[in-house]
Amino acid sequence: MKAIGLAVLVIAIGVAPACTVTAPATVSLGEFEGRISRQVLVSTQDEYNSAARAAQPGDAIILASGVWRDFDLVLDAEGSESAPIHLLAEQPGQVVLSGQSSLRLGGQHLVVSGLVFKDGYTPLNEVISFRVDAERLAFNSRVTNTVIENYNNPDRVQRDTWVVMYGQNNEFDHNHLSGKLNSGPTMTVRLNSENSQNNNHHIHHNYFGPRPVFGSNGGETLRIGTSHYSLTRSGTLVENNFFDRCSGEVEIVSNKSGGNTYRGNTFYESRGTLTLRHGNGTLVEDNLFDGNGAPYTGGVRVINADQTIRNNLFRDLTGTRFSGALVVMNGVPDSPINRYHQVDGAAIVGNRFEQVSTIELGEGSDAERSAIPINSSFKNNIVIGSREVTPFNLYDDMSGIAFSENYTNLKPPAELSDGFVVLAQGDSVPLVTSSPDTFGVLKSETGVTWFPKPNAASPFEGGRTIEIGPGENQLFEAISTAAPGDEIVLKPGAYNEAKSIAVQMPVTVRAAEAGTVSLSFERRNLFLLSADGALKLSGLAVSGTSAPDNVGNSFIASTTRGGPGNHIVELHDMSFEDFEINRAFSIVTAAKGTFFDRVEVRNSSFRNVSGVPFKFDGETDDFGIYNVEYLIIADSTFENVRGSVASIYRGGRDESTFGPHAFITGSRFENIGAESAPLAVLHGAQNIKIENNQLVQSQPVRFVITTGIPKVAHAGNTDSNGEQVSALSTEDLRK
Amino acid sequence: MKAIGLAVLVIAIGVAPACTVTAPATVSLGEFEGRISRQVLVSTQDEYNSAARAAQPGDAIILASGVWRDFDLVLDAEGSESAPIHLLAEQPGQVVLSGQSSLRLGGQHLVVSGLVFKDGYTPLNEVISFRVDAERLAFNSRVTNTVIENYNNPDRVQRDTWVVMYGQNNEFDHNHLSGKLNSGPTMTVRLNSENSQNNNHHIHHNYFGPRPVFGSNGGETLRIGTSHYSLTRSGTLVENNFFDRCSGEVEIVSNKSGGNTYRGNTFYESRGTLTLRHGNGTLVEDNLFDGNGAPYTGGVRVINADQTIRNNLFRDLTGTRFSGALVVMNGVPDSPINRYHQVDGAAIVGNRFEQVSTIELGEGSDAERSAIPINSSFKNNIVIGSREVTPFNLYDDMSGIAFSENYTNLKPPAELSDGFVVLAQGDSVPLVTSSPDTFGVLKSETGVTWFPKPNAASPFEGGRTIEIGPGENQLFEAISTAAPGDEIVLKPGAYNEAKSIAVQMPVTVRAAEAGTVSLSFERRNLFLLSADGALKLSGLAVSGTSAPDNVGNSFIASTTRGGPGNHIVELHDMSFEDFEINRAFSIVTAAKGTFFDRVEVRNSSFRNVSGVPFKFDGETDDFGIYNVEYLIIADSTFENVRGSVASIYRGGRDESTFGPHAFITGSRFENIGAESAPLAVLHGAQNIKIENNQLVQSQPVRFVITTGIPKVAHAGNTDSNGEQVSALSTEDLRK
Repeated sequence: MKAIGLAVLVIAIGVAPACTVTAPATVSLGEFEGRISRQVLVSTQDEYNSAARAAQPGDAIILASGVWRDFDLVLDAEGSESAPIHLLAEQPGQVVLSGQSSLRLGGQHLVVSGLVFKDGYTPLNEVISFRVDAERLAFNSRVTNTVIENYNNPDRVQRDTWVVMYGQNNEFDHNHLSGKLNSGPTMTVRLNSENSQNNNHHIHHNYFGPRPVFGSNGGETLRIGTSHYSLTRSGTLVENNFFDRCSGEVEIVSNKSGGNTYRGNTFYESRGTLTLRHGNGTLVEDNLFDGNGAPYTGGVRVINADQTIRNNLFRDLTGTRFSGALVVMNGVPDSPINRYHQVDGAAIVGNRFEQVSTIELGEGSDAERSAIPINSSFKNNIVIGSREVTPFNLYDDMSGIAFSENYTNLKPPAELSDGFVVLAQGDSVPLVTSSPDTFGVLKSETGVTWFPKPNAASPFEGGRTIEIGPGENQLFEAISTAAPGDEIVLKPGAYNEAKSIAVQMPVTVRAAEAGTVSLSFERRNLFLLSADGALKLSGLAVSGTSAPDNVGNSFIASTTRGGPGNHIVELHDMSFEDFEINRAFSIVTAAKGTFFDRVEVRNSSFRNVSGVPFKFDGETDDFGIYNVEYLIIADSTFENVRGSVASIYRGGRDESTFGPHAFITGSRFENIGAESAPLAVLHGAQNIKIENNQLVQSQPVRFVITTGIPKVAHAGNTDSNGEQVSALSTEDLRK
Repeated sequence: MKAIGLAVLVIAIGVAPACTVTAPATVSLGEFEGRISRQVLVSTQDEYNSAARAAQPGDAIILASGVWRDFDLVLDAEGSESAPIHLLAEQPGQVVLSGQSSLRLGGQHLVVSGLVFKDGYTPLNEVISFRVDAERLAFNSRVTNTVIENYNNPDRVQRDTWVVMYGQNNEFDHNHLSGKLNSGPTMTVRLNSENSQNNNHHIHHNYFGPRPVFGSNGGETLRIGTSHYSLTRSGTLVENNFFDRCSGEVEIVSNKSGGNTYRGNTFYESRGTLTLRHGNGTLVEDNLFDGNGAPYTGGVRVINADQTIRNNLFRDLTGTRFSGALVVMNGVPDSPINRYHQVDGAAIVGNRFEQVSTIELGEGSDAERSAIPINSSFKNNIVIGSREVTPFNLYDDMSGIAFSENYTNLKPPAELSDGFVVLAQGDSVPLVTSSPDTFGVLKSETGVTWFPKPNAASPFEGGRTIEIGPGENQLFEAISTAAPGDEIVLKPGAYNEAKSIAVQMPVTVRAAEAGTVSLSFERRNLFLLSADGALKLSGLAVSGTSAPDNVGNSFIASTTRGGPGNHIVELHDMSFEDFEINRAFSIVTAAKGTFFDRVEVRNSSFRNVSGVPFKFDGETDDFGIYNVEYLIIADSTFENVRGSVASIYRGGRDESTFGPHAFITGSRFENIGAESAPLAVLHGAQNIKIENNQLVQSQPVRFVITTGIPKVAHAGNTDSNGEQVSALSTEDLRK
């Protein structure tokens, strides 16, 4: 796919032992060797601080291998171009900064390499900062061959950023940033003082690993600039980076400044788009946007003046609207700095669009966003697909974009047809400007060689199968010793659990034979999810009759106490009966501050429940935060439920999330909501489907629209006589 | 005060070394010696389990001194009356059960002594249970000389009970139970099977240490029975126990069964009452109810038939209504089992009431509770006080209570005057049935000798004074090394904090000289309270301008992550300016699941705040839970606040709490709530005072009554011209 001319840097410090050495020693310095005249090996924070204070050009301070806890690591020094000051790991990957550690750089010509941040989180706003404080910035400095993994504040709403570039002429390359879960972009470039503008930074060959859905604004992977300084030139080059499943929110990259270049990057299965949100004159070229058919994968969203998008490959992208393969926005006339500036002079040239869902033109057109694109061109692009339907959608007059010499095998809209050559079946697809292997970068060419990149296996796979028999606390014991991906198989019989079970990894629990296993529990919650906790249950008959006399029991609950995670719950072929001890008994409840990627219920039955079985309404602050991305209820039955069957709350008016989704299909509901509560309450959901359900003594679903352009499908719902009924009542709170 | 005839048991196992011994050894057995024929010293859980399986009458299993973690300790065995089976500490107080440990007893003639449960919480519903499971109960068994302290589930709403008695003829004596913070009674006696009824249990000489306000139903210290079995005879004797500041909710003791005796107990500074909630034929005698003038301290609340309250001393009790010194309730005609049965045949005889606020007769009288007390007597009681006003309140026709031969120095109500001899100034007070020293028990005669009982010092006292100077993270560093009660004094200058500060103990921070110290902070929260975290701040000028661009910042916040506690925040002589970075900036915010005893603001100023400065509305489940007991704002000024100044939410319809309280007095408010939000929102508060404030461009406080009979005072509020204005708008949601 890729034939980048640059050689990949191979760093081979290698041979030093992994143990801690306290006396100065010589380590292999690899690529840095020629510019180092003195080495100081340090093994305590005090030793480091002394060495840093005394550092001279050509020095290399070597951190001894081992775990450095709670290390407020500051390198504030003046190197020179020919003799930088280095901060190196004794052995790359063997120097771990954990607990509450961070790194700040200030001065000139500094080089940092080989560190790993994990098992902790920053006590500051940043993990790696190219400044010591607002006065003392870094220039001509480089961070390379460094890892930050899962270095998350245990409180999801505590905001921080892993890497922040200030100053000028800095380089961030061959690093690995993976698994950010808490609020705040993974990486930003700031322009908040004059000597951070026109910065000429180079961000390249980094591996941006999976960033799961955050469930709110604040999940960008890279942001350059802010609206406040967006008319300033940044001049950052973002090159040959691999964005792997970076799906935190609608903006993978949020470009908020001028004169940047995004070249040769790969965006793989990443939700959202590279968004040219603010600022002018940015170039996007030679990138690969490969959605691999994953939901909401998009390409480039264009706003502002003088943007160039050329020679990119957009492939297998499923996103629509704000998340299309290409989105050209309408602007706001005389826009304030934080709204939408008109697209003017966009050049969209020589790109290939292969199997993409949509190309959205004039997106966002409404009474406010009425300024159509002007002075723009769409030329020499190729648009091919195997579906009959063209991906182009026009939301306004697109006469300000000149379409010419494009090729497609899908009949374009009439307004654009002059600009296309329509290919017939069997025609070869012309190569307009370049060969396919010049798009993007290989994953293996990014990041570091010594730290594994996360794979894409299902969390419920890859473990052992453990068979257990009935009795007291058998499940507690089994899960206490389980490993991620394990499957616990229950032999026929009655299981009772007197303890709550903390679930902090993915685990499957299933009946050896459906219908032969009964399960009861004595605590407020049987399962308490935190961290990587995920549960797949199947074939169990669960009774609530042994639960304590306590308001608000829930079979499964999440908790912030074990740290953040994106949870999954699957309930297949389950039955739940008599969850009526006291009020407000639930099946799955989300605590405020926790998040479920997916709760999926299939072919299951629920009978006699005193509360809301699926309760995801803990985020009442209207900050745009919510508790569940997908709630799927299919082919199931609910009977005698005092609350609504489900409650989802997503407040706030920002448009930065794709969810929540609620899909309720093929299910039967009888006597729900004590005859007055709705079947479900979906406040602020973005995508709902209520289809082919039967409603008996049940009110329609209540859907409250608060923001965005939600997708809504509801059809085929019937009453007890098989007559069609409306299963949805909608209230629209948008202005 | 006390001259109990029983000798205090002195247990003197004493001399064994504190280290762990693995081979069998002989320890001093004290009072148990005569009935022990064999000792087995065990030092691992496996050794214990082997010894327990093999236990014979006359055996003593000795747990080696040390910490036993996660010990599911079960003694299921058959001793005999002359030769019980013992489970003893090698040295009392030196055997600590921590982590997720618990004790269950089943069988006959078992004796447990000398254990300490701390540094953890039970994974089950109970810490010490007089049963192994529903089938296997304990009889003729005893737990003595044992401590449970602060053994709290880190999640306040996870309900458990520290000691639960099942079976019959069991004894629980000379134990120390202190500091329960999570949901659920401290101790209960259950009657849920026939062989737990007519139980003849003896609960005596225990020290029930402080139980702080829980902030919801579920904070009882002792409950005997439940409404379901309340017409069954329990026959439990509760004798010579000391209840020290047991203030979890409105019922200190919840008697919910018949035929119990409460004799010779002391209730000291405990909010609420000994409540004869359900069941008949209970005797309350020789007890001391000493409120010591503390708020909401009460005596006995009488419901149901054949209750006898005789020869008790009620002293310095401030409680009213449900928390009066004596409360005789009206009943519900043909009451369902869980409502109020009519008072019939109550004998209230020979009690002394000294300086009590109220004696409430026919309390709760309303359309539903219309059944007045019948066949009852109030005789030979003494009611004396130094205030002019009689404590008696009559809420209905009290002709069913015969008043005779009582003495008082306070003119009784006309309806009762025939039953009183009114003493003149200088008359001596007759002793009707007994001498004063027969009431209650001394604290020193209860609990264990080797574990300290908590004192009553202010949490902010008793520490060092630490002086620090201005700069970066100086406060963070100082608090990191502080001890409980320390006071940090800030020299003049500018302080900036780049990190959040976890506060898990009481600490004072004050300016050496008010007005000379400025403080700014860079994270979402400067102070994060958990566990015993309490903060007293004075004389600081705080700016919000360095906070991150993040919705929902708060200067002080609580978190569930560090474990539960009852927090205190005092802000004196403070100024807060420019808390406007992003939306919803607060000064103090409570996370759901956390609780503040008191937030007190005096002589402070607040200017330009984008959110709700005092935000205690996280408990939106309507489970009766709330976040703050007292919010006090006095002599302060607020200007340009976009939200309400305060928001308190207490949902649910139960009447089991005294709070929340909101007192807003002597303060000035200008341009509050962006001209539409109320000055404050007090949902479900039980006691509010809005007095002598000035309101300029501010709406009245919004008070929503949801339950109870709230106390409301509002007067002396004026507008900018000094004209009186209504500062309160009330909505009543009670039926």
